[in-house]
Amino acid sequence: MGIGWNFRYAALGFCLLTSMAMGQDNLLDDAKSLFSPIPKDPPVLNSNPATAEKVELGKMLFFEPRLSESHNISCNTCHQIGFGGADGRPTSIGHNWQHGGRNAPTVLNSVFNIAQFWDGRAADLMEQAGGPIANPIEMGSTPARAVDQLKGIPGYVDAFRKAFPEEIDPLSYNNIGKAIAVFEATLTTPNAPFDRYLEGDEKALTVEEKKGLALFMGKGCASCHSGVNVGGGMYAPFGVVEKPGGDFLPPADEGRKRVTGELQDQYVFKVPSLRNVELTAPYFHSGRAWDLDEVVAAMGTAQLGTRLAPEDVSSIVAFLRTLTGEQPQVTYPALPPSVATTPRPAP
Amino acid sequence: MGIGWNFRYAALGFCLLTSMAMGQDNLLDDAKSLFSPIPKDPPVLNSNPATAEKVELGKMLFFEPRLSESHNISCNTCHQIGFGGADGRPTSIGHNWQHGGRNAPTVLNSVFNIAQFWDGRAADLMEQAGGPIANPIEMGSTPARAVDQLKGIPGYVDAFRKAFPEEIDPLSYNNIGKAIAVFEATLTTPNAPFDRYLEGDEKALTVEEKKGLALFMGKGCASCHSGVNVGGGMYAPFGVVEKPGGDFLPPADEGRKRVTGELQDQYVFKVPSLRNVELTAPYFHSGRAWDLDEVVAAMGTAQLGTRLAPEDVSSIVAFLRTLTGEQPQVTYPALPPSVATTPRPAP
Repeated sequence: MGIGWNFRYAALGFCLLTSMAMGQDNLLDDAKSLFSPIPKDPPVLNSNPATAEKVELGKMLFFEPRLSESHNISCNTCHQIGFGGADGRPTSIGHNWQHGGRNAPTVLNSVFNIAQFWDGRAADLMEQAGGPIANPIEMGSTPARAVDQLKGIPGYVDAFRKAFPEEIDPLSYNNIGKAIAVFEATLTTPNAPFDRYLEGDEKALTVEEKKGLALFMGKGCASCHSGVNVGGGMYAPFGVVEKPGGDFLPPADEGRKRVTGELQDQYVFKVPSLRNVELTAPYFHSGRAWDLDEVVAAMGTAQLGTRLAPEDVSSIVAFLRTLTGEQPQVTYPALPPSVATTPRPAP
Repeated sequence: MGIGWNFRYAALGFCLLTSMAMGQDNLLDDAKSLFSPIPKDPPVLNSNPATAEKVELGKMLFFEPRLSESHNISCNTCHQIGFGGADGRPTSIGHNWQHGGRNAPTVLNSVFNIAQFWDGRAADLMEQAGGPIANPIEMGSTPARAVDQLKGIPGYVDAFRKAFPEEIDPLSYNNIGKAIAVFEATLTTPNAPFDRYLEGDEKALTVEEKKGLALFMGKGCASCHSGVNVGGGMYAPFGVVEKPGGDFLPPADEGRKRVTGELQDQYVFKVPSLRNVELTAPYFHSGRAWDLDEVVAAMGTAQLGTRLAPEDVSSIVAFLRTLTGEQPQVTYPALPPSVATTPRPAP
């Protein structure tokens, strides 16, 4: 498999370098062929259309600590809206101060990823949302308890009825996920400098940033980190050419192999989106890398077999910073109050 | 002391009942003499004037998990903007999943309290804000580490310079408290039905709610729960007439005696504001009571020596629900990113 990956990277890198040698004008064309801007409007989810009521309910649930067994942890605990959609920790702290296994991925633009979680074990945001609520080391509840909890809060009974008006029993675990998903689909970050560049504003990037973009494509980074999310569209082994040390790639976490059971998926992870990457340290699924320069250099050796020159690393990082878009403007929702009969938190 | 309190309550209760016997028209006058509406505009803090830059910085700090040792806990963890300004738990969960000693008081309208914390040990919001950051069982940091943390985040260095433009070393622990305080001072909830009533709209309360208000004043509740915050303006022993059981008043927590060292302050606590009380279960400093009816009945016996009839309890609770105001509209702030050299969280 290693040879296949290497060959593919080398070939793509060669093609891009060749075309880029033709001049600055082609840089934009090359970029357009590999990337696309974040749409100005949030995408529509198939089979889960957004309504104002559903988005508002999803926002409440996103900030709702009562979905956790302790009533202390919400989606926003690990995917903070104002903190790059993540939590700035190597791995998150969950129920009873247990530590998660992998770095919390950003929720921002996650709607554009092919699948959710580092190993892609959830097909979409709706499926993802149900995971942490019922994970014993995250929010520590169960689907049944989460539903009972919300059914014990009159404001939610009403809000689910409005969000799912045609359903007989609208307050279900499935619909918790659906509502959270439509809210999360609004958490996109359009109008990054790179988006403006892709839309034709050649002055949106500096010379240094364009050099970084050229290197990003030419060295082969864009073989995996492409598309609207500059990543998030495929799976790849961590360590295509040279396996990173156990600090970045702890041997016990075999990645997507856990999901598929296939040996070829050992140490394979979903390629993360690089959108807003400057906001989401620490990096890698292990959350062990804090310095974006170090991360780019490590990716060069591990994935591309290239020892990137420090000035090239700097240029690539300068380009990566152009992926920071307009952060979502979210008004903190008013959560419906508990009443005397509402189920109470675990001590 | 017990006799003094009883006498004062009885006298005030008598006066109010007498004046109320004069008819409905006087209810509003009586209410106006005891309460005042939440001002439409946030109050100005003496010696800590608000500027747009300082409020915005304070908002960032309020949501900033990196002020905690784990980078997992922010002010908003225990004082959630959208959850009545509190956290819905008996006592909060802090660093290493330690449990706090008392129920987290609401941050909403806290600017109108005479002092902060249940025992009034902080004179104002600025002093309060510094407490939890450095409390080993809350956010688990220290003043020095909190300052170093923020100095390691370029966006904060800049934000403090703008918020405190005349200071040579603006990023100080004191100024962290000042900025948080000016933001918290904006977290007021005007235009509750009771406020509209106080402003002269006699239709803002129903007959039942007016009956509750009359009872609230006539039975003596308003002897302590008065002023703009319907409480928050004085200290009182919990159990003036009859000491509550250990479930509501755990014997080990002697309240304000810890602050003053005076025996007369044993089991004395700041009278909590009842603003938005329907949003802030559970109740009492112990956080052991979940049912507002039960709480009102318990206050009747413990503080007033009165066994309130169930229908009177219902009316008083109906009145208490009119204290729910317009909740603050807070746009989640974008927190400045960590860089490679930013101090990292405790594991």
